[in-house]
Amino acid sequence: MNNEPHRIKDIRVTPVAFRDPPLLNTVGVHEPFALRAVVEVVTESGLLGLGETYGDLAHLERLRLAAAELTGVDVWHVQEIARRIAVVLAADTGKGGHGMSGMVTGSRTADRVLSPFEVACLDIQGKALGRPVSDLLGGAVRDRVDYSAYLFYKWAGHPGAEPDEWGAALDPDQLVAQARRMIDQYGFSAIKLKGGVFPPEEEIEAIKALRLAFPDHPLRIDPNAAWSVETSIRVGKELGGVIEYLEDPTAEIGAMARVAREVPMPLATNMCVVAFDQLKPAVAEDAVQVILSDHHFWGGLGRSRTLAGVCDTFGLGLSMHSNSHLGISLAAMTHLAAATPNLNYACDTHWPWKSPDEDVIVPDALTFRNGSVAVPTAPGLGVELDRDALARLHEQYLACGIRQRDDTGYYRRTTEPAFDPTPPRW
Amino acid sequence: MNNEPHRIKDIRVTPVAFRDPPLLNTVGVHEPFALRAVVEVVTESGLLGLGETYGDLAHLERLRLAAAELTGVDVWHVQEIARRIAVVLAADTGKGGHGMSGMVTGSRTADRVLSPFEVACLDIQGKALGRPVSDLLGGAVRDRVDYSAYLFYKWAGHPGAEPDEWGAALDPDQLVAQARRMIDQYGFSAIKLKGGVFPPEEEIEAIKALRLAFPDHPLRIDPNAAWSVETSIRVGKELGGVIEYLEDPTAEIGAMARVAREVPMPLATNMCVVAFDQLKPAVAEDAVQVILSDHHFWGGLGRSRTLAGVCDTFGLGLSMHSNSHLGISLAAMTHLAAATPNLNYACDTHWPWKSPDEDVIVPDALTFRNGSVAVPTAPGLGVELDRDALARLHEQYLACGIRQRDDTGYYRRTTEPAFDPTPPRW
Ligand SMILES: [Mg+2]
Ligand SMILES: [Mg+2]
Repeated sequence: MNNEPHRIKDIRVTPVAFRDPPLLNTVGVHEPFALRAVVEVVTESGLLGLGETYGDLAHLERLRLAAAELTGVDVWHVQEIARRIAVVLAADTGKGGHGMSGMVTGSRTADRVLSPFEVACLDIQGKALGRPVSDLLGGAVRDRVDYSAYLFYKWAGHPGAEPDEWGAALDPDQLVAQARRMIDQYGFSAIKLKGGVFPPEEEIEAIKALRLAFPDHPLRIDPNAAWSVETSIRVGKELGGVIEYLEDPTAEIGAMARVAREVPMPLATNMCVVAFDQLKPAVAEDAVQVILSDHHFWGGLGRSRTLAGVCDTFGLGLSMHSNSHLGISLAAMTHLAAATPNLNYACDTHWPWKSPDEDVIVPDALTFRNGSVAVPTAPGLGVELDRDALARLHEQYLACGIRQRDDTGYYRRTTEPAFDPTPPRW
Repeated sequence: MNNEPHRIKDIRVTPVAFRDPPLLNTVGVHEPFALRAVVEVVTESGLLGLGETYGDLAHLERLRLAAAELTGVDVWHVQEIARRIAVVLAADTGKGGHGMSGMVTGSRTADRVLSPFEVACLDIQGKALGRPVSDLLGGAVRDRVDYSAYLFYKWAGHPGAEPDEWGAALDPDQLVAQARRMIDQYGFSAIKLKGGVFPPEEEIEAIKALRLAFPDHPLRIDPNAAWSVETSIRVGKELGGVIEYLEDPTAEIGAMARVAREVPMPLATNMCVVAFDQLKPAVAEDAVQVILSDHHFWGGLGRSRTLAGVCDTFGLGLSMHSNSHLGISLAAMTHLAAATPNLNYACDTHWPWKSPDEDVIVPDALTFRNGSVAVPTAPGLGVELDRDALARLHEQYLACGIRQRDDTGYYRRTTEPAFDPTPPRW
């Protein structure tokens, strides 16, 4: 396999849908199915690389636009792939449709489109070399990657359906029970609460209940910018000494900077700094102290390592963001985290909210123990596509009728037609 | 060769000396021989990787300290190599002896030591893959790399020796003649003058003479921080519209920032920002607008790419610095430059000042045409060690008696015993 080019011959982009519980956030609630796109890159040399990204229709269209430009490129020439994607998307001025439901804005479209192709190319490089992707990123500096217990306020079940196995979580006691169940099952040693759902006083009470129940677990809360500057400062002061960081209490760099000057803990973000051009103003204002990286919107694993270098250089902490995802993403996140020395925090993951029987990879490549995942050592990402499962989840995509994530619309249709998520809600 | 570890079995560090003309700078003059160290990394699998770095005695000792720690590490695990070097050097509190004669200060010792090992590991990775090093850096974005004509004031020859082929360059006319000869021979399309040697008025005249003689060549001057803030501002205003950047007119970030606010052109540096921890204060003060990267002190090619990402993110221009060097360094510089999209300027090189018959690589792998070098496409760095030449230059090292670069001492011994290079000289 050496000395041989690995030129891209064919790319398949397959949208899939998997069941998702009714997880609440400040803009609404998760619909019954989450969407993803599986990207398969096939080389003339017969190797297959996998990538995973958002499944919203507008994003799928961009992925296909990009895919059509990549035939013949060698998988080691990631910069050429990035260049071609930037060129073909330069004419694409569409906004939205990125699968983040308004909760992540402003990042560069080209980076989002590049990401799954870059990951697939690294998967192929690793397979050609007989080495894990972490080796292509400078080598793993840890054998296992820590993830956090990602708690959500939630309904017992989707409207009109049976309650799911997790049941309702609408008050502190139920959240503590959810945390206990999740930690018993996965072993997580850090806890994150998705907030912005109820008035801040209730969410402060929830955090304090979690602190009592789990005295040694680092805690975080993320209201997705639901709060005003004043509310953010009030909550931040109230939770001083209780949480390790306060994630996106309010929107925009300037407002975050005002909060940062007044609260005792670091501010973290995956909302006001989601692209390279936002780093300079954020650093200038000292608006955030922790960046939640995410290779899905920072342009893949290589560019996420550049982000890590920027964080190291400018004294910013580094954590990792997650959307609802499947196993290809978990593998990529784990390789990246393993090869990032200055990752200071347990990574976010929605993994426990996914049914174990729904994925596109052959099971058991990635398992949680003590809240962490062992870094795969098999070639490439170390996961294998399950074609039957891919076909099933694609059929589910076709049947479910959802074509873009719309937490707000679902909440309005099921619960409160006049619901207005415009921040600040408090 | 696939699926096989490439563990480090043996490392050889060989100091070499090659003839160097009497090039003047603000701290003195180049001695008759320049020192370098050639690093050979050999794997259990039988592959050889090459690196090149400074040859000063204190640096050689650190290289050997580091080399002893690296046995058994896989060449893909560069982060583990960096970690081991940081650990072993943590106890090493020695200062100086880095081979830059006081003209580059403050960069991290561990990065300087890491660099040749990292380059050698990339050379091995490329050989194992059958691919050029540029492919390991995301792929070349250009086929050829532009270098600049690096002009020096110089004596006709070393004291007591015959004049060299370049002859004296001590006034504008002689510098123009030097430039013409160098450009005729190499085709360079940009010109840099090493200044800080004569009073600024004379050097301004030299730049103006070069502008007249070469109206279309971008020009730069680098006095190595010989000037006060006031002098720097005066020269900068005088050369507005004439030079593309003003390199290190004065010392330290704060002083550079004061100059930057008053002069019309970008300020460049390889003196006040030579390590990652200096980037944050430099950006905060907008002290410099162009960084001259140099993989020899920024920790190798991977970390130099991180630097490039920082520059791109913070709106800094990017150029490349050079010391007197041999072909292994030229190959590494060329691969790095080829794979760095945001390299905005022709790179510096001392190459024309080296005798064509003195190098440690087999000739003709790297040739200049129209001022640029074709990016090698052979596996690894694309250069091959010439063992006989290495032995000759090592013998020359042993015989020459020079053990650390000392431009100031040589100037005092030969010319002016009381010479005091303490800046600002003007
Ligand atoms: Mg968040
Ligand atoms: Mg310089």
